[in-house]
Amino acid sequence: MTRILALSGGIGGAKLALGLSHLLAPGELTVVANIGDDFEHLGLAISPDIDTLLYTLAGIENPASGWGRRDETWTFMKVLRDLGGADWFQLGDGDLALHVERTRRLRAGEPLSAIMADVAARLGIAARILPASDDPVRTRVKTGEGWLDFQDWFVGRRCAPRVQALDFAGINLARPHPAILQTLIDPALEAVVICPSNPFISIEPILAIPGMRQALRDTRAPVIAVSPIIGGQAVKGPTAKMMAELGFESGAQTVGARYADLLDLFILDEVDAALAQRIALPTLSAPTWMRTLEDRIALARTVLAAARGAKRA
Amino acid sequence: MTRILALSGGIGGAKLALGLSHLLAPGELTVVANIGDDFEHLGLAISPDIDTLLYTLAGIENPASGWGRRDETWTFMKVLRDLGGADWFQLGDGDLALHVERTRRLRAGEPLSAIMADVAARLGIAARILPASDDPVRTRVKTGEGWLDFQDWFVGRRCAPRVQALDFAGINLARPHPAILQTLIDPALEAVVICPSNPFISIEPILAIPGMRQALRDTRAPVIAVSPIIGGQAVKGPTAKMMAELGFESGAQTVGARYADLLDLFILDEVDAALAQRIALPTLSAPTWMRTLEDRIALARTVLAAARGAKRA
Repeated sequence: MTRILALSGGIGGAKLALGLSHLLAPGELTVVANIGDDFEHLGLAISPDIDTLLYTLAGIENPASGWGRRDETWTFMKVLRDLGGADWFQLGDGDLALHVERTRRLRAGEPLSAIMADVAARLGIAARILPASDDPVRTRVKTGEGWLDFQDWFVGRRCAPRVQALDFAGINLARPHPAILQTLIDPALEAVVICPSNPFISIEPILAIPGMRQALRDTRAPVIAVSPIIGGQAVKGPTAKMMAELGFESGAQTVGARYADLLDLFILDEVDAALAQRIALPTLSAPTWMRTLEDRIALARTVLAAARGAKRA
Repeated sequence: MTRILALSGGIGGAKLALGLSHLLAPGELTVVANIGDDFEHLGLAISPDIDTLLYTLAGIENPASGWGRRDETWTFMKVLRDLGGADWFQLGDGDLALHVERTRRLRAGEPLSAIMADVAARLGIAARILPASDDPVRTRVKTGEGWLDFQDWFVGRRCAPRVQALDFAGINLARPHPAILQTLIDPALEAVVICPSNPFISIEPILAIPGMRQALRDTRAPVIAVSPIIGGQAVKGPTAKMMAELGFESGAQTVGARYADLLDLFILDEVDAALAQRIALPTLSAPTWMRTLEDRIALARTVLAAARGAKRA
């Protein structure tokens, strides 16, 4: 029975999801993963955010990079380079097994969510990880060079081209995973947590799936977001850069404003406490920078305590 | 300009091809590779005989197994097993790069021969390696359990089920690679060498491609085969077992008989010299067991010398 439904992108979101998983019993946490970063590469179906969640919740993530597996080997990439293959996206030898197996099963007609549920079980993960949809959604980035597929911009170009606009290809045909909608109307649900992920490219590809945003407005459980911006900067990734390029102030208040129709509580970092007066929402300031496992668990505890106190607007 | 055209399966044939490559200048050796062992596995296009030829001629083969690469890592297989994936066919991490890249390029519409030529050039191979055809041919094995795909029988079942018959699916639609037919009518061609490979599953899937056998009968160059059977036994693989199960004598004479319409010379091992009287072909007995690189080169030298002396019937 899901008590907490978390929406998450990759690294930052996965850290809070891990903290939550330490405080909840098996089955009480469902994490909805962004699929806008998914892409086909070398003929393989790759789901970076889902995989970061899987590896993080299984405790086998690479702590240095935040993505991929620890104790990884790189023979595949080395040989691929020797053969003249595309080497701009790093695929570890162990990571590759997940992509090959996912691709094989998708081609055989299985939904992404079923494949990922099996993998999560194999990896001993107690939380449920759900792709936001079993239908494809692909984030595209408009730059001065034209529209780029997300990973071409994010990894291939290291986020360098200025962002003018974003598009989520396929979004109009995508349906929220039915288990998400069921969970949102379940009286057992105690809170929805929007993890400290990039709003533009991690959370909004989830929210933009037709019916998703309305279901989050309609749920009786309080909706709580944690800012991914601390002191005007992203802990990791291009969130602050994108905010500026898209014409927003680089600050937590911008994140809060994007979720204002949904939120019952917005959690800011302590250093941003003064921004509360600029946010037309109930706020809470707390330590949000998750350097250690203890930090992750502490922030999760803050979120769960806030959920108990939050009242639905 | 091709002087020697060799027909080869995997390990045994690749050993003689390597010996020949040591004695010929770049471009003088063309090796025609069996494609009947090719299969799709985990969504990847795998060509075991071509790859063994590539790795052997590049000097990066695994000397212990005869297939795959040396200095290989196995992280992919380990993780695939953890994920519940099919682990009956071993794919090393470096080997996988070749399969992924081949699959990607085949799906993009490139012919297998062009992809393999690029890979051979990347690996620094001076000989030309040609798939027998750019069209698919798939060997199937009839057993007491019904028809099995070749690799299911060969690797999956370790050749255990008794062989009742063989079939080469797709053979009627396959065309010999045009460069093979061109080479066979080229006056510069000095010999065709049928390498010591399994006749039933390595050489005959080549010969059975419509037009191939006739082109080999019609070529003006002498055709010379080396027996893969020494003293009634195969050096490696199921050749002798298959011979017996298919109702033939397990001996070099059976190999000679299967090529009798093509051959100008049949090379037997010294230990089989007495069999010459049972073979209705010119024969030569020589040391044929290739344990070392020197053995491979010595046998290649024997073959080339015999080619100079051989007269087309």
